[in-house]
Amino acid sequence: MKSKLISMLESRKEEIISIRRHLHQNPELSFKEEKTAKYIADFYKGKDVDIQTNVGNGYGIVVTIQGGKPGKTIGLRADFDALPIEEEADVPFKSKNPGLMHACGHDGHTAYLLVLADCLIQLKDSIPGTIKIIHQHAEEVPPGGAKSIVESGLIDDLDAVFGIHLLPMGPAGTVGYHAGYSFNGRAYMKLKVQGRGGHGSSPHLANDAIVAAAHFVTAAQTIVSRRLSPFDIGVITIGSFDGKGTFNVIKDSVELEGDIRYMTVETKETIEREVKRIVRGIEEQFGVTCELTYTPDYPPLYNDPELTAKVAETLRNMNDQDIKEVKEFPAMSPSEDFAYYAEKFPACFFYIACTPKGVENPYFNHHPKFEIDEDALLVAAKAVGQVVCSYYECD
Amino acid sequence: MKSKLISMLESRKEEIISIRRHLHQNPELSFKEEKTAKYIADFYKGKDVDIQTNVGNGYGIVVTIQGGKPGKTIGLRADFDALPIEEEADVPFKSKNPGLMHACGHDGHTAYLLVLADCLIQLKDSIPGTIKIIHQHAEEVPPGGAKSIVESGLIDDLDAVFGIHLLPMGPAGTVGYHAGYSFNGRAYMKLKVQGRGGHGSSPHLANDAIVAAAHFVTAAQTIVSRRLSPFDIGVITIGSFDGKGTFNVIKDSVELEGDIRYMTVETKETIEREVKRIVRGIEEQFGVTCELTYTPDYPPLYNDPELTAKVAETLRNMNDQDIKEVKEFPAMSPSEDFAYYAEKFPACFFYIACTPKGVENPYFNHHPKFEIDEDALLVAAKAVGQVVCSYYECD
Amino acid sequence: MKSKLISMLESRKEEIISIRRHLHQNPELSFKEEKTAKYIADFYKGKDVDIQTNVGNGYGIVVTIQGGKPGKTIGLRADFDALPIEEEADVPFKSKNPGLMHACGHDGHTAYLLVLADCLIQLKDSIPGTIKIIHQHAEEVPPGGAKSIVESGLIDDLDAVFGIHLLPMGPAGTVGYHAGYSFNGRAYMKLKVQGRGGHGSSPHLANDAIVAAAHFVTAAQTIVSRRLSPFDIGVITIGSFDGKGTFNVIKDSVELEGDIRYMTVETKETIEREVKRIVRGIEEQFGVTCELTYTPDYPPLYNDPELTAKVAETLRNMNDQDIKEVKEFPAMSPSEDFAYYAEKFPACFFYIACTPKGVENPYFNHHPKFEIDEDALLVAAKAVGQVVCSYYECD
Amino acid sequence: MKSKLISMLESRKEEIISIRRHLHQNPELSFKEEKTAKYIADFYKGKDVDIQTNVGNGYGIVVTIQGGKPGKTIGLRADFDALPIEEEADVPFKSKNPGLMHACGHDGHTAYLLVLADCLIQLKDSIPGTIKIIHQHAEEVPPGGAKSIVESGLIDDLDAVFGIHLLPMGPAGTVGYHAGYSFNGRAYMKLKVQGRGGHGSSPHLANDAIVAAAHFVTAAQTIVSRRLSPFDIGVITIGSFDGKGTFNVIKDSVELEGDIRYMTVETKETIEREVKRIVRGIEEQFGVTCELTYTPDYPPLYNDPELTAKVAETLRNMNDQDIKEVKEFPAMSPSEDFAYYAEKFPACFFYIACTPKGVENPYFNHHPKFEIDEDALLVAAKAVGQVVCSYYECD
Repeated sequence: MKSKLISMLESRKEEIISIRRHLHQNPELSFKEEKTAKYIADFYKGKDVDIQTNVGNGYGIVVTIQGGKPGKTIGLRADFDALPIEEEADVPFKSKNPGLMHACGHDGHTAYLLVLADCLIQLKDSIPGTIKIIHQHAEEVPPGGAKSIVESGLIDDLDAVFGIHLLPMGPAGTVGYHAGYSFNGRAYMKLKVQGRGGHGSSPHLANDAIVAAAHFVTAAQTIVSRRLSPFDIGVITIGSFDGKGTFNVIKDSVELEGDIRYMTVETKETIEREVKRIVRGIEEQFGVTCELTYTPDYPPLYNDPELTAKVAETLRNMNDQDIKEVKEFPAMSPSEDFAYYAEKFPACFFYIACTPKGVENPYFNHHPKFEIDEDALLVAAKAVGQVVCSYYECD
Repeated sequence: MKSKLISMLESRKEEIISIRRHLHQNPELSFKEEKTAKYIADFYKGKDVDIQTNVGNGYGIVVTIQGGKPGKTIGLRADFDALPIEEEADVPFKSKNPGLMHACGHDGHTAYLLVLADCLIQLKDSIPGTIKIIHQHAEEVPPGGAKSIVESGLIDDLDAVFGIHLLPMGPAGTVGYHAGYSFNGRAYMKLKVQGRGGHGSSPHLANDAIVAAAHFVTAAQTIVSRRLSPFDIGVITIGSFDGKGTFNVIKDSVELEGDIRYMTVETKETIEREVKRIVRGIEEQFGVTCELTYTPDYPPLYNDPELTAKVAETLRNMNDQDIKEVKEFPAMSPSEDFAYYAEKFPACFFYIACTPKGVENPYFNHHPKFEIDEDALLVAAKAVGQVVCSYYECD
Repeated sequence: MKSKLISMLESRKEEIISIRRHLHQNPELSFKEEKTAKYIADFYKGKDVDIQTNVGNGYGIVVTIQGGKPGKTIGLRADFDALPIEEEADVPFKSKNPGLMHACGHDGHTAYLLVLADCLIQLKDSIPGTIKIIHQHAEEVPPGGAKSIVESGLIDDLDAVFGIHLLPMGPAGTVGYHAGYSFNGRAYMKLKVQGRGGHGSSPHLANDAIVAAAHFVTAAQTIVSRRLSPFDIGVITIGSFDGKGTFNVIKDSVELEGDIRYMTVETKETIEREVKRIVRGIEEQFGVTCELTYTPDYPPLYNDPELTAKVAETLRNMNDQDIKEVKEFPAMSPSEDFAYYAEKFPACFFYIACTPKGVENPYFNHHPKFEIDEDALLVAAKAVGQVVCSYYECD
Repeated sequence: MKSKLISMLESRKEEIISIRRHLHQNPELSFKEEKTAKYIADFYKGKDVDIQTNVGNGYGIVVTIQGGKPGKTIGLRADFDALPIEEEADVPFKSKNPGLMHACGHDGHTAYLLVLADCLIQLKDSIPGTIKIIHQHAEEVPPGGAKSIVESGLIDDLDAVFGIHLLPMGPAGTVGYHAGYSFNGRAYMKLKVQGRGGHGSSPHLANDAIVAAAHFVTAAQTIVSRRLSPFDIGVITIGSFDGKGTFNVIKDSVELEGDIRYMTVETKETIEREVKRIVRGIEEQFGVTCELTYTPDYPPLYNDPELTAKVAETLRNMNDQDIKEVKEFPAMSPSEDFAYYAEKFPACFFYIACTPKGVENPYFNHHPKFEIDEDALLVAAKAVGQVVCSYYECD
């Protein structure tokens, strides 16, 4: 089956590219991907699969390919939302929707997966198990679509789940992997510090919220500097200190907002515990009242080490002229809601390099000039296809 | 001359009150006191004095009464601007100008001084010196009128200067004094802390202006706690910390504004020096760029101790049934631009109590329900008249 | 009686001086004034008074002079302990006890009061009331002698209490007074901050006591800068930060010690409350355990304003060639355990100037070269004598 | 040559162990390894090599094995100093020197390398290049021996350098590697903050060194929290805050000492630059004078990625029954002066696992009960031997 799959994919390279270009020209924002979802659902029309639409908190789609023999169940996931970015890349298939752009490669993720899914449908009699194709909406905006799809009940039976991301971190043909924690988790915080206003000349009759909040900011630095292992990754940024007032009036209350990042569940818990501790400490210390909203959103993405080792080995042994290099990539600072699948199931999320040919310093994902080498799409399809075959031990 | 003056004043008590009510009904904002100034100037029409109008940076008026004999020159000052307050006091002569009110007693200051000036004009042949009546505009709003009148050149020859303030700190008949520093000086500061923005997850590529500014706030506390004598008076309030931004974007720059108070020139200088030192320290420490605007406005008001002792003694020995108690008042937390006269000339600024009869907890100056016992106006006239006589040693 | 008393005192000027010199030569430390107390007690031997020795927690002495007529009871207090200072003043009656010196004028306080008491004993038939002479031990060292004498029960019936202090703040003949709060109160604090030690390279496995304690120090600055009225007097000095350790070992615990000063009971309470609040806040914020010892000792000394006004008036009207000037003195930064009497009874503690003749910059109390103009001793005796007569309205 | 070398090593396994036991029983402190050095030098007596003793700042030894053909020059390094630890391990060949112990495995490093060197000497005609055996003194105590050997001029011509460390991170047979930065670099800092002493009640007359130093401590937290990439490793521990004083005396000066760790040269430079910046900032801000000693000692240890990949590949392909697993190890928090060789030459420092058989939670290096599985010594010899052969491409 493996060689059949590979040659089927090779023959449909142009189709993958053309699907990608269609999606690229018709980007839709997270949670608003109505037409994109319809396009995907239409693709499966008439095929012998079960298709569920409007899954989760948006336009999620789960397509179930029942293999010809009993066996394990795996998920393959691709996201399909775009970004509120005005495209500046000079391509013939430029976005038709002003202010919107597929600047993160989700168009490519979806394109390769549609064609791969179709091939797998055709080959399903040989598959000893069930494959669930997860077309996910809304990766870009918390709470994201992944969590709600996990909670939908439709994929409770997964034994493993795979996904890829296009990244301009090498030429098409390079595939990257990283075992263990691979993408940062993230939390949002809002802190209202309520003191008591008063005249600037009489601090003793007031309770200065700016002074208390400034002490919060300085004390919060100790979380990263003293509470985390130096080998851990954690960031706390207070990006907003909203304390505008009148120069001679002691500020009644101020509002801080912040962004928290971490690479492990332990660090996530340490930071949350310590932020709350410092908030309580500031309340006690300055007699102010604090209202804290602390909302973790995407968890750190954990690639199952065993599964990842197997994926790396599979890719290394492919002997495919299109897959030229397989190497470890570093852990990444952004967040990715594939992490929700990985929280529940053994998962491997890996990287398909896509730097345009001849470009030395490519524009990265989320840049208005982001572009990909479309040759990477076939690489993605083959790599994931190979991983599926290898998982089922189909030769 | 003294007894003649006193009985002249007593006979004109109702006139003082009626002038005050006229002014009270027609309040005008600082720097906009056009009609008030005209009313005052008209009062002097046809009298044997020199009158200068539009003095300084507004509608200031200086009236020179040339005494019959050579001698020292003194100034008597009353301010005449009103406040942007909607009057809530229930009086028959309520403000006719919506949103404006004589809520600080300047109407009373002007009323008593006009009548006193007129009496002194009538008695001028007996006066061994020159009296300059200073009707000052714009006391309420920095930079105020006083500084510009001092700089006008019209009063360079003063040997002493006197002023009073109506305060509801006792019944009409009580007069207060305070030697040395009596009203706080004040400065305004604005500090822009310029860092470098960046993504919340990459602090090392940015320079967080919120963290630097928070450290400024905490370090600035040490000025009052460690740099001032415990017996000095000083306050630094950062009333505005304008750092509103996006939770996950490291803040590029923030702007602080603050109010500084002090009771002595030494403390003024210490605080200014130390604020600037800490600003430079923050620049050095965090590699940020700071723009500091530091603008002292009204200086601390210093009552010449010798002159004040003489005033207190004079008032104590008056034996006037209207002046029932003469006592020391505490130093005051507000600021008053009479301080500019006192910076240049020996000065005594004292207090005429004016709590309305039967009222236990009077509304204070600047309150929309502020009222005075109009009996205090004759007290003011007599007290200042007596001080003038005593200064010239006229019996 | 008044003029009789004054002339009696004048005639015994040399005796006062000679007693003072005897005491000066034989200084004894606080709580160890055995010989001094015996000398004082011997002085009263054979006189018609009640004498109580070993009063309170040391060698205190209370001598009761029962007047010839019924009336009010007043206390006159002088302290008699010396200091652990090696005298450097070049006087013929230099201290004979190495390392000990009457460097605070208590020798003079005791000398004048002994002679004044003897005169009052002789005149007691004319006194309409009871006078208790309080010879107090141990003023210099907390807890001091005053508190224990107040608690002894021997002076529960005082209607007023008076004391004086020799201060080189003017020539002999100048007498000073200050109504209201006049000497600072004081507290001692010790704070142990207990974290958890560990290797310098692994902060997450430890809990850094130095970081927590440093935050205590910075936060504590806000008490003076933001919690006190700018017109209040308060100081918090952390004089000891005992955190010596090994450079690469995270510090387990540190110990801070501090000195707190304040001029009013309200400020005393505010500071104590806020120090405790910040300690709790640091515990909460850093997860450390704090042990706080907070021990107020001498309270702020409060001179009853009415009684002080009466004393000032009495002194001003004395018409005595030895009492040349009576003036207000500022509040003082040191502490004085006369404050305990003043907490319980209407009190007036005033100042006898004693700058040596011809000296412009005198050495102050507690300096090894401290000296007094002994003429001030008669001034003290006369002033206090006059205050007594005036209190009893004896002419 | 390769198979010959391997079988020679296998036949001398007992000799390696017996040398190691001899060294273990005779530990000597860093810079005092006189007898150990003599033992090593004696080992080479009569062999056809150049031997240099007393190399660098101690008892360093460099043995040069001139190969039979021209070619590249490589270094093999083993350290030979022991620790001031009283041995608690229950072994028959326990340390004979009280208070001293080979608790870091350097005895094993030296033992395997002596025998390997001897084998290489015997096989030198087949070696196309020069091998320098570096027996290094004083690894445990900065400044260490490595730096001085690098600077001796004796090894300037190295093309590559290799070393290993025994670590109980797996059974004998496991070999670990880590490309890139692998051991922390380290610096020591001492900061004297000089203010100006004074009485606790008069902060304005002093300059409080404790307050300034506390602000240094809080500001220094921002280096790790805001100046480093979250993916970098850095620690700043202030382990000593020597500010013991008298509670009511404002502290004149305090002395801080600290330990700094970092994994890259960039982080090393960032931290040093920022510590100095904050020190200057504190000087400016508080008007104190700072004396900073900042002494980097061991640099971060950087394993050349290409060389390390080759080593890993070589080991993986050995097909040796004694080398059972080759895997990536994490970066390590301690420091190691092999880093000085790696600063100058392409280097690979790798790990020989040595957990005693049957032990689940082994005692680590530097523990008084540290023990090794001596089977690991042959693993070390074979692994390094193989790496040498592979480097020279000798079959």
